Amino acid sequence: MNEPTIKEIREASERIKPFVHLTPVLTCSSLNQMCKMELFFKCENFQKAGAFKIRGAANAVFALGVKEASRGVATHSSGNHAAALALAARWRGIKAYVVMPENAPHVKRDAVAHYGAEIMVCKPTLEAREQGLRKVLDVTGAAFIHPYNDYRVISGQGTAALELCEEIPGLDIVMAPVGGGGLLSGTAIAVSTISPQTLIIAAEPQRADDAYRSFHLGRLIPANNPDTIADGLRTSLGDLTFPIIRRYVKDIFTVSEEAIVKAMCYIWERMKIIVEPSAAVPLGALLTKRTGLSGKRIGVILSGGNVDLANLPWIH
Amino acid sequence: MNEPTIKEIREASERIKPFVHLTPVLTCSSLNQMCKMELFFKCENFQKAGAFKIRGAANAVFALGVKEASRGVATHSSGNHAAALALAARWRGIKAYVVMPENAPHVKRDAVAHYGAEIMVCKPTLEAREQGLRKVLDVTGAAFIHPYNDYRVISGQGTAALELCEEIPGLDIVMAPVGGGGLLSGTAIAVSTISPQTLIIAAEPQRADDAYRSFHLGRLIPANNPDTIADGLRTSLGDLTFPIIRRYVKDIFTVSEEAIVKAMCYIWERMKIIVEPSAAVPLGALLTKRTGLSGKRIGVILSGGNVDLANLPWIH
Repeated sequence: MNEPTIKEIREASERIKPFVHLTPVLTCSSLNQMCKMELFFKCENFQKAGAFKIRGAANAVFALGVKEASRGVATHSSGNHAAALALAARWRGIKAYVVMPENAPHVKRDAVAHYGAEIMVCKPTLEAREQGLRKVLDVTGAAFIHPYNDYRVISGQGTAALELCEEIPGLDIVMAPVGGGGLLSGTAIAVSTISPQTLIIAAEPQRADDAYRSFHLGRLIPANNPDTIADGLRTSLGDLTFPIIRRYVKDIFTVSEEAIVKAMCYIWERMKIIVEPSAAVPLGALLTKRTGLSGKRIGVILSGGNVDLANLPWIH
Repeated sequence: MNEPTIKEIREASERIKPFVHLTPVLTCSSLNQMCKMELFFKCENFQKAGAFKIRGAANAVFALGVKEASRGVATHSSGNHAAALALAARWRGIKAYVVMPENAPHVKRDAVAHYGAEIMVCKPTLEAREQGLRKVLDVTGAAFIHPYNDYRVISGQGTAALELCEEIPGLDIVMAPVGGGGLLSGTAIAVSTISPQTLIIAAEPQRADDAYRSFHLGRLIPANNPDTIADGLRTSLGDLTFPIIRRYVKDIFTVSEEAIVKAMCYIWERMKIIVEPSAAVPLGALLTKRTGLSGKRIGVILSGGNVDLANLPWIH
């Protein structure tokens, strides 16, 4: 399979349209004033299953042939991709098997169970996840849908930026958080084709800065079991997402834990919407690194809204 | 001044249009399934200053003559009206004086201060508020803008339901929370004219059920310093709002504190939006009293989203 282009992203958009929300783009005058920028938030926190992940999962699930699909799908994930895959599998009427790290937020594990997937719990390391997964694949013959290192998933994730660029033309910058790079690479392909003058900038937790280091060193540096509140961004870039990111992404900003929590709190307080820590990472970057960005029109992908409401980072 | 009609509400709508948001109407398939109804949420939590109150305040402030306006405006309020009046006064470039009870949530007091109003703190009783206010009016000559018992305010509040009925025609029911009755009476006038077949139903905390009792006894029963988490609904009906409510409102449902918190939590969790307890009271009613409402198309006014994020009712 070749690296996806805007053609595959448009096909993904048509394929998943009957199932996913065309999410709104919101603005907030109070945050604009605070940042001295014009921000456009693509609200994937309102997406089905509470995150952009359903776009990639649904594209992958509905792209499977009938025979392949009949054996089900499987994945390992810290949560949002798992819930998304479970939901997409239910839509298609096939089984989903999910290997989840034991430290995944309860709200995410509950969502996966709610959508009817079979869950296997593992240690919170990439190795443990992969081992658990191999076992599942051997037993079931299910199709593996990687959370991000999969061209069908990347194409699906790119549909959010496609919608954003079509709704708000002429953006100076589009920002997305980066964990494994599925959202970022899909965004990069979509934006660089539809709006070539728009810069693509990523934001990443300082404490999980494998993408930043890989980007600047020019080779894949895996994350070493990183500890950040942005639980969706603890994964490492993949060998499919990294080359796309190197080619199209202008810069990667790293963000402190404190700035992530502050940005999350601002979004809740000023926009009255609920986002998870990972979704607040780009705004955290904009609130701390503003050099040269003043006055810019910036699209920000709010990646998800799955938070444990009984366990908020600003309440101790 | 005569009781407002749809004409005054339409005038209010034109008058405040340059200043307020045309708020979105959101739906949520998960809450629809839960209630077995089709719910349409008018999101006044996204409104300027975080609540519908800016509609009435802006209408009253911009309806003042130049000379009257020049002496400023004053009010007493548990919070949202105060912030709204402060903001509307700032838009018009005049002073605002606010008498606030000492137990008003900090987030609401901060908002009032942020919009540049002068604040006087008083005991949390209607008497103390009114006494504090008389002093302010004597000294400043400001125009008193009552939080709800004022036809200009009632007309302004009616603009939310006007927008809701124009965007979603053919609703079976429109629901609003009731405290002093400004939102409910404005809603009642708007809905009964634009959509005469639509029933208007109010929801009120059981612990502050003065509207319920007044409605059923046919005379004004003031609330006696009620204690409910829905801090926006602790006020009593006024002599201007009560007759309108008697005439147009079909029923008033009372809601337990537990049901209010549960409904608030569902709205946060399922819709990924932030509403204050008062805004969750109608859904609280729908989640507990569903007899005869199954399958109905119901518009619900989510009145506001000003919550102290460090002090949430489900975290102890």
